[in-house]
Amino acid sequence: MSSLRYLDFQETIIALATPPGKGAIAVLRISGKEAISITNRFFKGKNLEKQPSHTVHFGVLVDGEEIIDEVLVTIFIAPKSYTGENVVEISCHGSSYIIRRIIELYLKNGVRHAKAGEFTQRAFLNGKLDLAQAEAVADLIACETALAHRAAIQQMRGGFSAQIKELRQQLIQFAALIELELDFSEEDVEFADRSQLIELVHRIQSVIKELLQSFQWGNVLKNGVTVVIVGKPNAGKSTLLNTLLNEEKAIVSEIAGTTRDCIEDEVVIEGHLFRFIDTAGLREYTSDRIEEIGIEKTKAKMQQADIILYLFDLQNTPVKELLEEVHRLEALKKPFLLVGNKIDAVTKETLTALEDLSLNYQVVFISAIQKIGIERLKASFIEIVHRQEFQASNVIVTNSRHYEALQNCQKSLNEILLGLQSKISGDLLAIDIRQALYFLSEITGDITTEDLLEHIFSKFCIGK
Amino acid sequence: MSSLRYLDFQETIIALATPPGKGAIAVLRISGKEAISITNRFFKGKNLEKQPSHTVHFGVLVDGEEIIDEVLVTIFIAPKSYTGENVVEISCHGSSYIIRRIIELYLKNGVRHAKAGEFTQRAFLNGKLDLAQAEAVADLIACETALAHRAAIQQMRGGFSAQIKELRQQLIQFAALIELELDFSEEDVEFADRSQLIELVHRIQSVIKELLQSFQWGNVLKNGVTVVIVGKPNAGKSTLLNTLLNEEKAIVSEIAGTTRDCIEDEVVIEGHLFRFIDTAGLREYTSDRIEEIGIEKTKAKMQQADIILYLFDLQNTPVKELLEEVHRLEALKKPFLLVGNKIDAVTKETLTALEDLSLNYQVVFISAIQKIGIERLKASFIEIVHRQEFQASNVIVTNSRHYEALQNCQKSLNEILLGLQSKISGDLLAIDIRQALYFLSEITGDITTEDLLEHIFSKFCIGK
Repeated sequence: MSSLRYLDFQETIIALATPPGKGAIAVLRISGKEAISITNRFFKGKNLEKQPSHTVHFGVLVDGEEIIDEVLVTIFIAPKSYTGENVVEISCHGSSYIIRRIIELYLKNGVRHAKAGEFTQRAFLNGKLDLAQAEAVADLIACETALAHRAAIQQMRGGFSAQIKELRQQLIQFAALIELELDFSEEDVEFADRSQLIELVHRIQSVIKELLQSFQWGNVLKNGVTVVIVGKPNAGKSTLLNTLLNEEKAIVSEIAGTTRDCIEDEVVIEGHLFRFIDTAGLREYTSDRIEEIGIEKTKAKMQQADIILYLFDLQNTPVKELLEEVHRLEALKKPFLLVGNKIDAVTKETLTALEDLSLNYQVVFISAIQKIGIERLKASFIEIVHRQEFQASNVIVTNSRHYEALQNCQKSLNEILLGLQSKISGDLLAIDIRQALYFLSEITGDITTEDLLEHIFSKFCIGK
Repeated sequence: MSSLRYLDFQETIIALATPPGKGAIAVLRISGKEAISITNRFFKGKNLEKQPSHTVHFGVLVDGEEIIDEVLVTIFIAPKSYTGENVVEISCHGSSYIIRRIIELYLKNGVRHAKAGEFTQRAFLNGKLDLAQAEAVADLIACETALAHRAAIQQMRGGFSAQIKELRQQLIQFAALIELELDFSEEDVEFADRSQLIELVHRIQSVIKELLQSFQWGNVLKNGVTVVIVGKPNAGKSTLLNTLLNEEKAIVSEIAGTTRDCIEDEVVIEGHLFRFIDTAGLREYTSDRIEEIGIEKTKAKMQQADIILYLFDLQNTPVKELLEEVHRLEALKKPFLLVGNKIDAVTKETLTALEDLSLNYQVVFISAIQKIGIERLKASFIEIVHRQEFQASNVIVTNSRHYEALQNCQKSLNEILLGLQSKISGDLLAIDIRQALYFLSEITGDITTEDLLEHIFSKFCIGK
């Protein structure tokens, strides 16, 4: 970071921290060396500069003789604040007129408007949180589901950073030893045990692999769980979708193969966002060209699925055919759920025939049209989500910047292994290790560029 | 107020105090005896029950094992709070998911959702502010102009209430004396000097009259200043309106009498909202039926005007004609402004002829088409507003409920005077005085009904 950036940060900044619009109260946040002393000029009630940190004061804000509002002013004295600087929070009446007047008052007194994310950026630059934690703050504000919330909280509280920092620490030790060798290069010594290095690289690679794998799941957390409903024509896919959505989005008809377009909709179940995709009937062979396109689309959708729901008609599906389908689903290596429909119309013999299957695979019996077993079905979605979560590493990567850095790190680690195989010299090895370290450091912000910071914080909202 | 209402207020309430929507932070407000102790159950960091009032504490809010958010919790200990009860304000990340989770947490623990205005209602019932002040809080949140803001601040800080209370105090003294007479009625004494009472009633009536008059102005504060632009056809009214609005709303043409509909638009000048109304050409006699309707409308609009702007063509208006117009305007008893247009095309002789007029009346010279003198014109609007403000009593009535109560009080005072004239007995007089007192008490809420409170606070936003 250039010294220019630090100079910028000598300035005191202000922003509305609460959403715009009419409300009972609004909160304005001011940060910077002069935050308290400037506020003290407008505040009548007591001398704010003589108050301890983390205290709240009632009084009026004045512009000359004119009272702008009765306010509560909270004082945070550096470094015990969000940004690490002096911070003042003004809680005023939630009128846009009053908010404008207060901001104008500060602007007239040498305070400037905060840029998007500038409070959090200052917190990062002042060492209050690392870059991955800062990014989690934005994720937390944007979170709309329990899973996204959990991942953001975990990351904000440093879970992810701790893991990265540990890997980094181990690599740094090796880098140090190898660079020490370089100082003694004429003596041809090896301080860094090459076999230990190989072992370490393997260990780091396996952790990173897990983190990379968690990224798919991380995306699910951010964007919701995609459930693709597949099954033969007339299995009742559209009816099931309607029942799940409680509304008539898909066209339901008695004629096999009615649904040709993929229909999507979102439902929140126990705080988890599910995106359901109904598909055209899955028939292997069809003379109908449009139907064929529908099947192509279905296959594409199945690739995007986080969970595949295979729906079958309990009455008209031979167990043998079902088992074949199960093997095809297993080959996709995705969580899937077998759902037997039309339980309301089924004979006891059919159910008995399915018993063997139920022993090996989870089958949920429902009647989409009679709304039987729907709660059980929803519970099964949640079970799968929890199982996935459990399988994912404790730490989940949700940020594509982190994903990219981890991928790059993985590549550099491969380079190290290749170099060790071909017994390259210590100085070249050191370069590869430095490269791997660089990518890890990028995540936590131990190494950053101005552009990167600019990019990250510009996506924040104003006032944070 | 029934005891039932007080029982309601044993409950602890919660509401989002900041506007809904994504923001850097959101503030939740909890009020009631258990506000702090219940919050303490979810807050990890320190024991909130042992913290002094007006302090802020950083920590995490948990639901069982799960961390919901890192928050700042502010403690206000009764009676030193907005409501007069124990109050907790939680500043959390501005995610609707987190807000929902926190509210759910409190609802599960015996706290209930606050009704609209319930925090302010509690403040009123706990004697933190009177009813007129409480109503001003809602006005303050809704204020959009400097004038509305000033009136609301003044009322919230008790200016209006103080005046009402003083009148009330004086009447109460008399009422007490007259009621004392009743106790000694057999002895036929007069403790209350009737001529002093007449004098007092007159004094109160004159104050109330002023307050009632300020109501028109109070409405202006709330709704903006209506400026009706009148003048002969082709004086340039539409051009002036366009220049003021900086856009082509009115149809401008060279043919006299083009503008037939009243065209309105709003402009904020120095924080004051002005509503400009252009009118059809003011011609006393016209054969054109449509034009005639336009003139009728103009006269109606002039009745609604707060300021009348009389525009005349400097070149084509004889001074004599202008003076006649000025007398007609004076008869309307409204602030008016004479504006001479087409200064760009005028001869020196014409201006000299107008000099006498300028000595007695304020005349602004402009060119609507060349945009000359427009800033001076705007300044004149502001001057008139300030003059009106100055003329209005210090206290301005903006609330129709107060207006109604003052009108009713005025009627009761008339009854007292009539009663005194016809020398009615002390007990009847006492009833009239009680009646006048009742209406004054209604304003400050010294006397209220549940329905009234319900009605007033239901118009508040949730969280206030």
